Formats: sequence, structure tokens, C-alpha cells
Amino acid sequence: MGIDPKLIERRLDELYAIGAEPDGGTFRPLYGDAWVEGVARVERWLKDAGLKTRRDAVGNLWGRAEGADKGKSIVTGSHIDTVRNGGRLDGALGIVAGLTAVESLLKEKGKPRRTLEVVAICEEEGSRFATNFWGSRAITGSIDTVDADIGQAMRERGLDPAKIPSAARDDIDTFVELHIEQGAVLEASNTPLAVVSAIVGTAHLEIVVTGRPDHAGTTPMDLRLDALAGAAAMMQAVESIARSLGKPAVATVGKLEVEPDQINVVPGKVVFTVDLRHSDLGGRRALEERIRSLCTTISQERRLGLAIRTLQEKPPVTMDSDVRALLARAAKECGVQAPEMVSGAGHDAQILAARCKVGMLFVPSVGGRSHCPEEHTDPGHLELGARVLVRALELLAY
Amino acid sequence: MGIDPKLIERRLDELYAIGAEPDGGTFRPLYGDAWVEGVARVERWLKDAGLKTRRDAVGNLWGRAEGADKGKSIVTGSHIDTVRNGGRLDGALGIVAGLTAVESLLKEKGKPRRTLEVVAICEEEGSRFATNFWGSRAITGSIDTVDADIGQAMRERGLDPAKIPSAARDDIDTFVELHIEQGAVLEASNTPLAVVSAIVGTAHLEIVVTGRPDHAGTTPMDLRLDALAGAAAMMQAVESIARSLGKPAVATVGKLEVEPDQINVVPGKVVFTVDLRHSDLGGRRALEERIRSLCTTISQERRLGLAIRTLQEKPPVTMDSDVRALLARAAKECGVQAPEMVSGAGHDAQILAARCKVGMLFVPSVGGRSHCPEEHTDPGHLELGARVLVRALELLAY
Repeated sequence: MGIDPKLIERRLDELYAIGAEPDGGTFRPLYGDAWVEGVARVERWLKDAGLKTRRDAVGNLWGRAEGADKGKSIVTGSHIDTVRNGGRLDGALGIVAGLTAVESLLKEKGKPRRTLEVVAICEEEGSRFATNFWGSRAITGSIDTVDADIGQAMRERGLDPAKIPSAARDDIDTFVELHIEQGAVLEASNTPLAVVSAIVGTAHLEIVVTGRPDHAGTTPMDLRLDALAGAAAMMQAVESIARSLGKPAVATVGKLEVEPDQINVVPGKVVFTVDLRHSDLGGRRALEERIRSLCTTISQERRLGLAIRTLQEKPPVTMDSDVRALLARAAKECGVQAPEMVSGAGHDAQILAARCKVGMLFVPSVGGRSHCPEEHTDPGHLELGARVLVRALELLAY
Repeated sequence: MGIDPKLIERRLDELYAIGAEPDGGTFRPLYGDAWVEGVARVERWLKDAGLKTRRDAVGNLWGRAEGADKGKSIVTGSHIDTVRNGGRLDGALGIVAGLTAVESLLKEKGKPRRTLEVVAICEEEGSRFATNFWGSRAITGSIDTVDADIGQAMRERGLDPAKIPSAARDDIDTFVELHIEQGAVLEASNTPLAVVSAIVGTAHLEIVVTGRPDHAGTTPMDLRLDALAGAAAMMQAVESIARSLGKPAVATVGKLEVEPDQINVVPGKVVFTVDLRHSDLGGRRALEERIRSLCTTISQERRLGLAIRTLQEKPPVTMDSDVRALLARAAKECGVQAPEMVSGAGHDAQILAARCKVGMLFVPSVGGRSHCPEEHTDPGHLELGARVLVRALELLAY
């Protein structure tokens, strides 16, 4: 089975130009003008490939090649929206490689045994509204509330929020997606392709440390209740705990705010966040528990107030073992050993996993860069990913 | 020599009411309405005490009792401006106790041998304009530039910025000031009064730590260049170094800013400040040198960028040894041993020291609180401070 890597690169360039920003990168926020144009371009490609297209109630775009057998569909694709100043590949690669793969299969092998579909999921990034996974949540029937602003934006694009339940699907057998890694693990280990074993579970904590604001000159070190010095000790603990638990545990203090934030006042209050991830729920909980415990010890030693609040919690999602085996087999047949790896970032597959079998392929990100104009994958790696995707779809649908 | 403590408390109450803010405390910013009213009230008290008053070119208010001998003046007083939501005693105590002391001396002892003056210094806090020690810098002739906004505010009060040089004095022999400690050292050691030995030297550093912003999920711990984790290690070092150098060394990280400050992004850049103080220039430099050296080591270990910039540097100022001895003698004659202590905060005396002999008395601050409505000194301590001040002025001027 062949696939034209130049066609993929050309289509990626075309899509990247839609939403191009003056300061670099592209921005196709859900229901925005660039998003409308991007969806229209993909629809034209789907039609050119001989697929029957339709938009569902939230604006997910589907292209369908009916299979000879009755039964559930084999679906590939990704999300069409981007972050602000986003790169050329995040989401776009899964759509372009998916539709080009299906196009090749239809051309070379004709009508599939099982129905093959390509989907351009309307939204995953959360970069316009206070929501994310909007498209995949519609597909799994798990949208409970529609905020006023998103409802208004839907109506402006001729979509009726009341019809969202009609977007739910229970006739998808398997969803496979090619995506960039968005990290530097594959590059660091010189690996051209990986099969995703699981998407990490995430917990977001907010930690509030309370001390006492004091004059930086008149308060000796031993009479201070310095909230920032305490927070610094806690941040050191967060890092040490994640390191000592080992991969794939990660913990990040990303946001931090000091009060009163004056050069000559001992900080009275610090608020910071911790982002915790692990592919295993037990591992994620162990990470959180050790962090909570050590922060408590530090606050007690330093006579500081401590309040820890969970802002968000998402369980880890394991990819389907049959699909993982099939992806590994497809890779092997294309001449590479694709090791398994854990995805540290979230993907639509983690939502769709509630309704169907899911699997993902990762190609390396140069320098681990993503969500920025520098986002790039070596063309050879990109072609390899596309070839393995074609072979996997062939194994699944023919 | 007697002094009426109730009169002092009543005058402090009156002054505190001028500039009272709805959310607590008082605010008398330089050249503001409350400042004008406060200066007028003090002028009335000075006149009532039999002193001849005048305003100098920047608005410092002077009350003068001519001495029998020719020669330089003995001056007492403090600053009349306050920080926002300031307390009842910072600055106000030195003016009220000083003028009440001189009033008592004139009443009981008549014309002094040496000229006695009371000064209400127009500004010390830096809470309205991008300047501080405005009044004492005018007295020492060390104002070089006048910002447009402060010049405009002066003209609105009928003061001519071109005349600032005329405020300079070279006929002050000794300046003594009663002030609250603004820290908790005296309270912690159960000491009712102290003689200030020196005002600490201060250095303000800005430290910029540069790493690389990475995805918090896809970047394993060992592939990160986390600017905030590095800054946390540096903040721990700042605290440890100050503690290990021992009193009176203090070091404070008061301000900190994270970029991009997102919950799911490894921080790429952190900017924080360090406020360093020591009563001895060598001690202050040792503190700074160790901090610079350890921050450099940490940045190298973590492969982070590091830039350290000195924002401000003020040398420590030693109080005059004769004045210190005289203040200690006055205390002893009032029945207390007044130990010496270092002032961690800045005061007008450190500026005036360039032109005359200076000395300061500290009374305890309850809970170490200052620059806030809770600023308070036990009335007994306040009375003791005023009595020692009267005796010191008597020793100096009669």
C-alpha cells in the first residue's frame, strides 16, 4: 500500500495557512472564521477522495466510505482547531494523514469490507471557550451543559445547541489517530514511531500557603512566617517526589502568585498550582498523596497555614490492547519496531475510549516543541507514521 | 523633667485622624490635602509651645527656640507623611514626642543654652512619588533632580522647585529622633527601649532565571529546564545563607513573577527580587556574594540562564557614638538600661548623618506590626521613650 508523502505535506501547508497569524503560527478557534474555512477545505478533500460528507450537530465533519458488511465503523482523524500561535501538525496531521490514507486505500483496494470514516473533530484544545474535548464529548454523548457564549457562537454558524444529543455515536468500532508526540521522548531515544499505551491521568491542585507579611528590614529571619520561603520548600518537594517516583510520573508548578508582592515585604501569602500526571491511577494518587503529605509537614515545621484544593481530576485512559497489538503489527510490516509509550498530553482518544476501541500512533516532535510555530516533525518520520496508519486501516477495514 | 504622656497620646490621636481612610489607618501622602492639614496642625502646636515656625522650600516645617549661645542647633522630630493605610505612630511619634518634649523644657527650664528646633520632615516614605527621603535630602542639599510630577505637586502647594537648594542646612549639630521599632525584636526580648547603633545597608537585587517553557504532560522530569524549580532552589539558598550568617543579616525574596504562568506549562522564565540588609558593609557584601555564588551554582547544575542585576544599593549608616552614649545615659537616668540595636528599616537619620551627628531611640512595636492600622506601642513604653527624649534634649541643649 502506498501513500503520497508530498500530498500530505502539501495539504498540511494549505491547512497551516488557514488562520495564519501575523506573529507566527496559526489560530483556528472553534466556530471562528479560520475554523469555518479549515473545515470547508477538509470537506473538499474528503469529497475529492470519494467520501460522503456530513456535519453533525456540533460541527464535527465526517467523511464516510460505506463498507460491504454491515456493522460498526473504523474511524480515523483528529481535531481541526488549534491553540493561539499553534503549529502545523497538532490535530492537522491526524486529519490530513487519515483522509489521505483512506483516499489511497479506496483508490488501490476499492470498497472496504467495513465502513471507513474520517473525522475532523471540531474542537479539542479549549483555546476559545471554557471547555475542551467539545467534539469528542458530543460524539460520546457526554455534553451536559452548553455555556451561553458557546451556544451563541454555534447559532452564528447555523448550529442548534438543542440538537447536540444527535451528534452521539454508538456505531464506532475503532478509532485510530496519528499524532505528534508533543514532547521530546522519541527524539531523545532516537525512535521514529511509537504506539500509545495510555493517556496519563491528570490532577490539578491549588495550594495556598499563608504566613504573615512583615517588614523585610525589621524582621529577623527567626521571627518570620515567610509564605514564599515555605512555598519554595514545597516546590522543591514537588519536583523531588516526581523524580523519585520515576517515569511516567510528572509534577509541575506552573502558576504562582505572591502577596503583597513587594520588594521589601516578607510574603504573607502564596498561591501556586501543581499539575500531576501518571499513566496509572495508583501512581497518580501516590504522587498526589506524597506531595500533600510533604507540603503539610513543611507548613507545620514553618508554622504556615496550608490549604490544598483539587481543581480538576481526570483518570488515566488505557488504549485498547487489540488495537495496540494491531498498530505494532502494522509498524513491523512497515519495517520498524514501534515501542509503546505513555502520552503525557490529553487527546480525543481518551474521551472516545468510553464508547469504542481506541489506539494512537506518535511520531517525534523536533526538540519536543508543540503549540508553537516551531512545531515540526522530520518528513521521513511523518511519512513513516502515515504508512503505518494506512496499513493499520487496511488491516482493520479490509 | 516631666512630660505629659496624655498630651502626647491626645496629639497622636488628633494627627491620626487627619487622613483617616475608610478601610482603616491613615494616609498623608506628600503635598496631599491630609498632608497640608497635618502640617498646619503641627504648626499650631509648635506655636502654642512658644516656638517660632517656618516652612522651607520643600515644605519641611521647623519650630525654633533660639539658644543663648551662638552655634549649631539641636534638632528633634520625624516625618509627617505616611504610607497608605498607615499607622498612628510611624513618623508621628517623633514629631509629637519631640515638640511636646521641647514644650516641656521651655516651660520648666526657660531659654536653652543651645538653639533647639523641632522639625516635621515633609516626606520619608516614598508612598506618593518615585522618591523617598525627600525632606531629609533637601536638608542635606542632596536633591539633584526633580521629577515633573513632584514639581507640579509642589507648585500646587505654592512651593517653587527652583528654590529647593535653599532648604539645605549646615547649622545642625545633632539630630535625635524617637521612633517605633517596626519589628518584633524588642518585644521578643522584653526590652522597653533601645538606642539605635546603626541603620542597615540595603541592596536590592533582581534575579532572572531562564529555562524553557515545555508541556507539563509530555516533558519528562529529566528533560526539563524548569525556571521555577530552579528559582525555588535559589530562594531556599537565599534563606539558608541569611540564617547561617546570623543576625543582623536578613534576606527576603519579596516579588516573584513566572512566565508563561500557566497551570500546564513548565515555567520558562522567573524574575524575583532579593532584599539584603546588614548593619556592616562587609557583612552585607558577604551576604550578597554568597547568594550570587550559590544562585550561579544552581543555575549551572540545572542548565538554566541566570542574570543578576543590582537595582539599588545603600550603605549602612552608623549612629554617632557620642550621641549613642548620651542617649544611653539619658535612659539610665530615667531608670532603664537601653541596649543597642540595629535598625532594619531606613530612617531620615541615615540621610542627615551626612551633615550632622545623629541618634535614635526605639520603643517596641506590639507584634512587630507597622505600616498598618494595627501599629501600636504600649503607652508605658511610649511614655518612657518620651521621658528619655526630654532628658537627652536637656543634656544636649541646657
